[in-house]
Amino acid sequence: MIEVSDSPIRIALLQGCDQGSKEANVAYTIARIREAALGGAKIICTQELFNLSYFCTIQDSKNFDLAEPVPGPTTDRLAMLAKQLGVVLIASLFERRSSGVYHNTAAILNADGSYLGKYRKMHIPQDPGFEEKFYFTPGDLGYKVWDTSFGKIGVLICWDQWYPEAARLAALGGAEILFYPSAIGWLKNEKGDLGIAQHNAWESIQCGHAVANGCYVAAVNRVGVESEIEFWGQSFIANSYGQVMDRAPADTDAIVYADCDLIGLEETRRDWPFFRDRRVASYSGITKLMLDQEKG
Amino acid sequence: MIEVSDSPIRIALLQGCDQGSKEANVAYTIARIREAALGGAKIICTQELFNLSYFCTIQDSKNFDLAEPVPGPTTDRLAMLAKQLGVVLIASLFERRSSGVYHNTAAILNADGSYLGKYRKMHIPQDPGFEEKFYFTPGDLGYKVWDTSFGKIGVLICWDQWYPEAARLAALGGAEILFYPSAIGWLKNEKGDLGIAQHNAWESIQCGHAVANGCYVAAVNRVGVESEIEFWGQSFIANSYGQVMDRAPADTDAIVYADCDLIGLEETRRDWPFFRDRRVASYSGITKLMLDQEKG
Repeated sequence: MIEVSDSPIRIALLQGCDQGSKEANVAYTIARIREAALGGAKIICTQELFNLSYFCTIQDSKNFDLAEPVPGPTTDRLAMLAKQLGVVLIASLFERRSSGVYHNTAAILNADGSYLGKYRKMHIPQDPGFEEKFYFTPGDLGYKVWDTSFGKIGVLICWDQWYPEAARLAALGGAEILFYPSAIGWLKNEKGDLGIAQHNAWESIQCGHAVANGCYVAAVNRVGVESEIEFWGQSFIANSYGQVMDRAPADTDAIVYADCDLIGLEETRRDWPFFRDRRVASYSGITKLMLDQEKG
Repeated sequence: MIEVSDSPIRIALLQGCDQGSKEANVAYTIARIREAALGGAKIICTQELFNLSYFCTIQDSKNFDLAEPVPGPTTDRLAMLAKQLGVVLIASLFERRSSGVYHNTAAILNADGSYLGKYRKMHIPQDPGFEEKFYFTPGDLGYKVWDTSFGKIGVLICWDQWYPEAARLAALGGAEILFYPSAIGWLKNEKGDLGIAQHNAWESIQCGHAVANGCYVAAVNRVGVESEIEFWGQSFIANSYGQVMDRAPADTDAIVYADCDLIGLEETRRDWPFFRDRRVASYSGITKLMLDQEKG
């Protein structure tokens, strides 16, 4: 095992366009992982469903053929790569769990090539063009934290990013960096009116998670047009003050890097000890869907 | 009762310097309330502890003399003003509940002059220069929502702003606008290194609450130097995409206005139905202080 270093850990996010086939996407991503590792990155995260097109634009049961076991063939390839390069890899995949049960899953591979485990996307969207409830059974593993060779990380996926509860639970479990493989974009009929506002919301709320939890947030998004969706790229990494350290363009492939001072998080949390003052006895309403006091 | 209008509701935040005495602060604030009402504001919110200096810079038991009952003399005066002007007022006060029990409390006065109730600050900070745990017993009323003449509002106070749980609970109870009377500023020895980062964190997390909960957020801060604290002003109102609609300067008194389209929030929440997909059965860990799985 590689020891945790006192110096900042460089992380990298791989933002890319669909390459047209599973094999092409895997080859493309492996090349980017090698590039990021050469750039000094120690934890590298793919975008959501990295080895596939964003097939959720329509509801078509043939697409279940795209799923694979996790761990499985793709994680086996990536595990060898992780070991060879001495890096932690986070790979977002379409998981076949059994006939009729599929998940949107991220696998975590440690720098020694070992498979640490997986996260299954807990919050599943369903909107025109994002037909995810058709494909993905909501996750049943909760919000996990992995003590990797280079830091304690939480992994959440796309729609999870709108839920402060998910970020909080990962942070309470010890996460120092939250990774969000994502696939979010503009619909043609909305971009004009809402494009700027939607992107602002997306970045704002994730920066908020970083502040609330005194941790880093790293969101990696797809880019390029697929079907009716223009994925808006702009993958970014924010520090514990919600400041964006690096941000990718909206229209092209990119690798986003940041040096994360995990030791320094202790200082942030001492200066602003939010965790100290939580009023946990007053939070039970969070476990209710609404607090509207309906009578019947 | 004034009926809820279909048109946007104008709200106003009163950012000001300490005027040197309780009576001067009340007179100053009443003048600003009249000004804001003339400007069309229908819900008007004061900064934290508006009729006092920020006395929490030191621990001195004489300062308990500054507290008053809520409702009490100040809310009586403001209730008459609210009725006269036909506006909702939110007034942040130092509440004397009994000997030995004092709260940091906000009173809500409806546009007909009726006293709707109060919120007692739930999360209490304690830092050098912000000696609040010495003065304020943590609130015991939870996160309330008031159905005022001009919309459903939640009121939280300053340190509460760092807790997504507080915003979420108010929103689940129906709040369409979250008001945050605040008193936050830079310490001289920190401003150089952390000033920009701290302000960024403060605004980011509150914009995040607006996004997460599909509501408006209105944060009103003190300004000016008191003791060792330079209150950073920059009161602001953010829409449900986390976009700042108006922001006050960092160094002077100001009234911040925004027109809040409460009917339009329905559209935001239909476009991005975050509340629909909450996984409440997975959130019970929120009611734990940490999830560190300590064994002993």
